[in-house]
Amino acid sequence: MTKNILVGQSGGPTAVINASLYGVIAEGMNHLDEIDHVYGMVHGLEGFLKDDYMDLSEELTQKELELLKLTPAAYLGSCRYKLPSDLTAPTYPTVFEKLEALNIGYFFYIGGNDSMDTVSKLSRYGAQIGSSIRFVGIPKTIDNDLFLTDHTPGYGSAAKYVASTVREIALDAAAYHQPAVTVIELMGRHAGWLTAASVLARKDKGDNPLLIYLPESGFDFKSFARDLSAALQTQPNVVVCVSEGICDSSGRLICEYNDEAKLDNFGHKMLTGCGKVLENFVHNHFGIKARSVELNVCQRCSALISSAADIEEASLAGSFGVRAALSGATGKMVAFERTCDTPYTMDCSLVDVNQVCNREKPFPAQWITGHGTDVGQDFIRYALPLIQGEAAHPMKDGLPVYARRKPSGPQPYDASSSSATSVPG
Amino acid sequence: MTKNILVGQSGGPTAVINASLYGVIAEGMNHLDEIDHVYGMVHGLEGFLKDDYMDLSEELTQKELELLKLTPAAYLGSCRYKLPSDLTAPTYPTVFEKLEALNIGYFFYIGGNDSMDTVSKLSRYGAQIGSSIRFVGIPKTIDNDLFLTDHTPGYGSAAKYVASTVREIALDAAAYHQPAVTVIELMGRHAGWLTAASVLARKDKGDNPLLIYLPESGFDFKSFARDLSAALQTQPNVVVCVSEGICDSSGRLICEYNDEAKLDNFGHKMLTGCGKVLENFVHNHFGIKARSVELNVCQRCSALISSAADIEEASLAGSFGVRAALSGATGKMVAFERTCDTPYTMDCSLVDVNQVCNREKPFPAQWITGHGTDVGQDFIRYALPLIQGEAAHPMKDGLPVYARRKPSGPQPYDASSSSATSVPG
Repeated sequence: MTKNILVGQSGGPTAVINASLYGVIAEGMNHLDEIDHVYGMVHGLEGFLKDDYMDLSEELTQKELELLKLTPAAYLGSCRYKLPSDLTAPTYPTVFEKLEALNIGYFFYIGGNDSMDTVSKLSRYGAQIGSSIRFVGIPKTIDNDLFLTDHTPGYGSAAKYVASTVREIALDAAAYHQPAVTVIELMGRHAGWLTAASVLARKDKGDNPLLIYLPESGFDFKSFARDLSAALQTQPNVVVCVSEGICDSSGRLICEYNDEAKLDNFGHKMLTGCGKVLENFVHNHFGIKARSVELNVCQRCSALISSAADIEEASLAGSFGVRAALSGATGKMVAFERTCDTPYTMDCSLVDVNQVCNREKPFPAQWITGHGTDVGQDFIRYALPLIQGEAAHPMKDGLPVYARRKPSGPQPYDASSSSATSVPG
Repeated sequence: MTKNILVGQSGGPTAVINASLYGVIAEGMNHLDEIDHVYGMVHGLEGFLKDDYMDLSEELTQKELELLKLTPAAYLGSCRYKLPSDLTAPTYPTVFEKLEALNIGYFFYIGGNDSMDTVSKLSRYGAQIGSSIRFVGIPKTIDNDLFLTDHTPGYGSAAKYVASTVREIALDAAAYHQPAVTVIELMGRHAGWLTAASVLARKDKGDNPLLIYLPESGFDFKSFARDLSAALQTQPNVVVCVSEGICDSSGRLICEYNDEAKLDNFGHKMLTGCGKVLENFVHNHFGIKARSVELNVCQRCSALISSAADIEEASLAGSFGVRAALSGATGKMVAFERTCDTPYTMDCSLVDVNQVCNREKPFPAQWITGHGTDVGQDFIRYALPLIQGEAAHPMKDGLPVYARRKPSGPQPYDASSSSATSVPG
């Protein structure tokens, strides 16, 4: 008897989370003897609980499916929804009733730590009630902080974006001969994987970025002032790359070093990042030109500068997940095993999703060099294979063409719930 | 008798200012009967006055020359140097002695308003003393605010970068279903040309960005609150694009709406942009999620997302300038004339550089629509041809390969001149 697939996306978008969705859909349609429909949850499990889903096998044309593979962000929409820890909560029977009603045999959730928590809980509840539905997690995160996998889909593209962009900004910074410091703030609250990728921007020894600080490096202003002073001896334009989550030895975030003071004209707190704090520090301490650049969400949605290797692996993670579930796997996450460094080769495998969820893989301490100001050759060897190749994006009128889900209807903002404040001028 | 060329770059870098440099060098080398050497000023006229220059015809390999065409930022280095208004100042004979010593017959300066001011002054002084040296300006600016030319090299690539990136950020913003506002701050202190390009990100009617504010639009918080409220009725995720230079009816910059309050922990003023001010305003006035993204210098250095049309035109501006100077032109700027809209065709021409310098071409008022919240079809027709085509960038190890001048030696930061302040913890 044929069953249906249900697939969802959860957590922050990436440039290749849709490539994994593509992999699930395309592989699902390859098994018409076992799979009838591929349904997509709209806005993850949160949407599915409100019966918001679509039939991907019916609604997507072949052309849209191909576009999907190269489209950034979450085609199905995402959510940040956590299932109750208590498996006796009424949410669980509700979810399973809805799954049974749609004749779901295979459930795929594409996401990071929190999404794997969902897969873990659903598979455990399923086992308790003797359900035959199989639950498989497909990894995704630009942060690269998932356990038990060599790396995660999404990381390679974000790393490539960071490395190319830092290389371009370093060229821009070199235009003037006056001493100046450019601080580039990169994503990564707890793990420095993405910031570490800025080291790839260097072409030759001594190139910018001259200083790289990860959350794992530790940071203090005194050492920073000393290191920056030394860097400014070697060239007038210094580029410094920092993770958003760098903190001092007491664990206080550097971005909080100006929390008290940042109020706007209306008396409200302004939040700025650590890049701005360091820009200000450099300007005032060294008396030279300083600026900060925050690459922001572009790190996770710049599909035009994505890695072809990452796109292919993300798609593979989806298709491998489908084949694994059809073969009986449940309560698993698809993982990547690096089988060789040079030339780079990898295999997909399955790991226990319970061992993955709710943990964060830190950047290896031994890969941090230069007394916490740099990243070494071991990381470069690790990261280079992940940023290889460029995808040929369909372009129209000079701009990339992306797949888009037709919205299920606007959810307009309710003005009555506004915490309205006075409007100046 | 053969003469030499001297070429320099000045003002802010762009993704294609080096394509113009390429055009000058390549065309110069095509006229070996008239041109002996092509010299490059290092860091513009400011560097040249310190005898900092290089022989581009000798030092650049053919391979480097080809790379140069696709390399962002200013290969020769740039400067922000203004010649004295008084043509009897001693700087002028100094410049001309140095030009004569190098047997310069043709002087090219690639830049914006201020650079054209330099060309204007040097050509006027040259005429006064009966010099035979010819001075020609090659336009460059992502701001597109030069007079007497249909558009400027550099604008097309920046516009393409803005349009693609806003399209990608809009997809990212649509991932969650909760109402949220994303404010994207774009370059443009006085002219809205670049911010207007964000309209190209829309694929269909009703797409984001739903609101676009230029410096020429006028801005007030009351109207913004009303317009945003209306936009939030049509979809939960609203993207707002604003020029850095938007100001209220009294001419006060919106980014100054929090100047007084922004002090860091050390009591120093923090500068933030108008995007941050609006993010804060939205969050506090509407009580919904708001974030701001500043595309920053990526707008002028993201060569990977440059426009092939722009690269070709930038190169053409350089080569046309050389041919024009060889034919006797001086005191001119190369300009672009659009000869047809559909299909787009253009010609190079020469305009009086004195009519160009020190002026800024505003965005046409009649192209601003939606009571100052949008940009109309006339602009789209104008801008679309400028963002067409993609360059095939040479890649190595997954990253773009760019040409780089070997530095003439570090100009290390002098610690003794530092206005050092206390270093915390």
